[in-house]
Amino acid sequence: MKVTVSRKAHFNAAHRLYRKDWSDEKNQTIFGKCSNPHFHGHNYELVVHVTGIINPDTGYVIDMKILKDLIKEEVEDKMDHKNLNEEVPEFYDKIPTAENMVIVIYEALKPHMNPEHELAVTLYETPRNFVSYSG
Amino acid sequence: MKVTVSRKAHFNAAHRLYRKDWSDEKNQTIFGKCSNPHFHGHNYELVVHVTGIINPDTGYVIDMKILKDLIKEEVEDKMDHKNLNEEVPEFYDKIPTAENMVIVIYEALKPHMNPEHELAVTLYETPRNFVSYSG
Amino acid sequence: MKVTVSRKAHFNAAHRLYRKDWSDEKNQTIFGKCSNPHFHGHNYELVVHVTGIINPDTGYVIDMKILKDLIKEEVEDKMDHKNLNEEVPEFYDKIPTAENMVIVIYEALKPHMNPEHELAVTLYETPRNFVSYSG
Amino acid sequence: MKVTVSRKAHFNAAHRLYRKDWSDEKNQTIFGKCSNPHFHGHNYELVVHVTGIINPDTGYVIDMKILKDLIKEEVEDKMDHKNLNEEVPEFYDKIPTAENMVIVIYEALKPHMNPEHELAVTLYETPRNFVSYSG
Amino acid sequence: MKVTVSRKAHFNAAHRLYRKDWSDEKNQTIFGKCSNPHFHGHNYELVVHVTGIINPDTGYVIDMKILKDLIKEEVEDKMDHKNLNEEVPEFYDKIPTAENMVIVIYEALKPHMNPEHELAVTLYETPRNFVSYSG
Amino acid sequence: MKVTVSRKAHFNAAHRLYRKDWSDEKNQTIFGKCSNPHFHGHNYELVVHVTGIINPDTGYVIDMKILKDLIKEEVEDKMDHKNLNEEVPEFYDKIPTAENMVIVIYEALKPHMNPEHELAVTLYETPRNFVSYSG
Repeated sequence: MKVTVSRKAHFNAAHRLYRKDWSDEKNQTIFGKCSNPHFHGHNYELVVHVTGIINPDTGYVIDMKILKDLIKEEVEDKMDHKNLNEEVPEFYDKIPTAENMVIVIYEALKPHMNPEHELAVTLYETPRNFVSYSG
Repeated sequence: MKVTVSRKAHFNAAHRLYRKDWSDEKNQTIFGKCSNPHFHGHNYELVVHVTGIINPDTGYVIDMKILKDLIKEEVEDKMDHKNLNEEVPEFYDKIPTAENMVIVIYEALKPHMNPEHELAVTLYETPRNFVSYSG
Repeated sequence: MKVTVSRKAHFNAAHRLYRKDWSDEKNQTIFGKCSNPHFHGHNYELVVHVTGIINPDTGYVIDMKILKDLIKEEVEDKMDHKNLNEEVPEFYDKIPTAENMVIVIYEALKPHMNPEHELAVTLYETPRNFVSYSG
Repeated sequence: MKVTVSRKAHFNAAHRLYRKDWSDEKNQTIFGKCSNPHFHGHNYELVVHVTGIINPDTGYVIDMKILKDLIKEEVEDKMDHKNLNEEVPEFYDKIPTAENMVIVIYEALKPHMNPEHELAVTLYETPRNFVSYSG
Repeated sequence: MKVTVSRKAHFNAAHRLYRKDWSDEKNQTIFGKCSNPHFHGHNYELVVHVTGIINPDTGYVIDMKILKDLIKEEVEDKMDHKNLNEEVPEFYDKIPTAENMVIVIYEALKPHMNPEHELAVTLYETPRNFVSYSG
Repeated sequence: MKVTVSRKAHFNAAHRLYRKDWSDEKNQTIFGKCSNPHFHGHNYELVVHVTGIINPDTGYVIDMKILKDLIKEEVEDKMDHKNLNEEVPEFYDKIPTAENMVIVIYEALKPHMNPEHELAVTLYETPRNFVSYSG
């Protein structure tokens, strides 16, 4: 009897979609206004889903307080109010698209999870665009 | 060709997370302010998902009016404006965490469903915390 | 490493649930006020989910601009501000329930997708009623 | 010490923006796709605001149950699942724009209100378009 | 040139609508299921609005961090995860309706505000019921 | 009989709160992580409110299509996917706080409005922080 527990969090950041090995023209063609060299930004809404068996002692799959603190330490403290391209090492050589971000967030959380728990992550870049990843 | 039909509902209730066989100190350590002996409460948002084949006569998997009435009878009438610990028998001996609640709701609805339909339930305890269960 | 990319869109339309081969009484019994011969309408919220491998050149599964334009051409241009029963050929002989609509939308989008991508569609008829289909 | 009490409600309806005394061309020029002769429709979200002094016996400005029932009788029962142009007499000779609708709703509710209460009405035609009127 | 700055916060609590000087029957007649002696509860969404002139040095009317901390100290710490009737002294002799609550919250915040700032408070008891007060 | 018509729009941008004439330490003290020299960003939700008399010919206060296009030209085209400090001239010498932004947006729209119409603007910097200005 597995239950999925989900927690929403929020952070905001600046980013730019471009490749250093492409010309400005090619970056503009592929990424459009998202490649603006002066950066733009988003309010990211994050949902972390943890699936596992309920602990019969507590009625919890995972204590939401622990999950909330883990998201703060592993995601918010590293990305909130940051420039993803310039200040988050995972994106020094990787384009900070929502797709790449959701995998980076998953990989940051996974080592801290109970190995018997399944992890999935959903990331809203805007209210109309979002991505999901489950390993 | 299976389609999932989903219906949102709403109820509010008081609850307290604690175990009678634990001391107040242990309850406070494990459940924090959620173990407040005077109770606290939530507006619960419930989403019930029913998956099945479309009835070619009506174009429905299930008539939403029937699903709405079933949720009212089996969930809202039993839990809305109630104290879960004191007034809902399923929680006399079970901690009313969101995880335990979503299973209780699933078990209340399941016997009334078409056996060819798959059932899943999502329960929001707050806008930032939610749980899902599908049997 | 598959990621799901999702895009929300919006259209509004009039419709009526009824079968030409049923009497008005039977339509009223089965579909209630949804069979009103003068039509009623909804703001439909559509979410299109595309699952695939990230293109290492761009960091995209699919360019959101391309997905947005595809939804506009294949769904919004055909259904927005339309009477589904009278103006959308797929519903000349099919009841425009949300269930039938989500399949019609899936079938309209599918031929334009990369065959290696999985497609799923969610359609909100009202904020409390929605349906999902993934082929 | 005046407090404003607000209640949200929901209905859906079909409509068409056009004037009988204008040509189809002129209607198309002024109202665009909103003048589609086959109608289109919306999920309308309604918020009714009542401002007055708190009754010291009950702690209420107005009992929300009474306000909810009044909205049902005077607005939902008349407009929900209806064609505004064809079935709601106020719009036989008045274009059912959101602006005209919010005044019609205000005028329907006002005679039933305590004369010492101030009334205001907000009507969402879509999540992005809404109107407000306070007499 | 006055600007209004608004901050949303969240807390949840249990309450019961009843008067000690009324019989159970009268409480039931007036307050219905809201008078349940075992209490029920809500997720309250709070919006605090502060209107004033922009400080030309900072571009702020009020530092949002300061407003957020003030709401935490004066409202969340006193009401979150509490039983309003039993644990919040302002409601020992006052019915905790949303109307009375919004005034109590206003009065708790007002003494801490810059006297040149205007204060208004909106409180959502459920997604469909809310109240506002501005002194 | 004045009605207020409101239109929501959306843009995203990068910004940084700081004063060139202050030291990094002072900027950090006053603006905290919002003064990050590498910028951060937001999805801004904008609501433009126009109050006026209904045109009896059309039933409109203002054609929403015209209002939508005006917001696009005067706000979205200038700010969407931009760095406010570096690319929007109004903020070369003014801190792009939400308060200053809402006034800049009001001033950009006002000259294009019917002088008999009243204008108000609400700007959400995050789902929990927003500002309003009406001249």
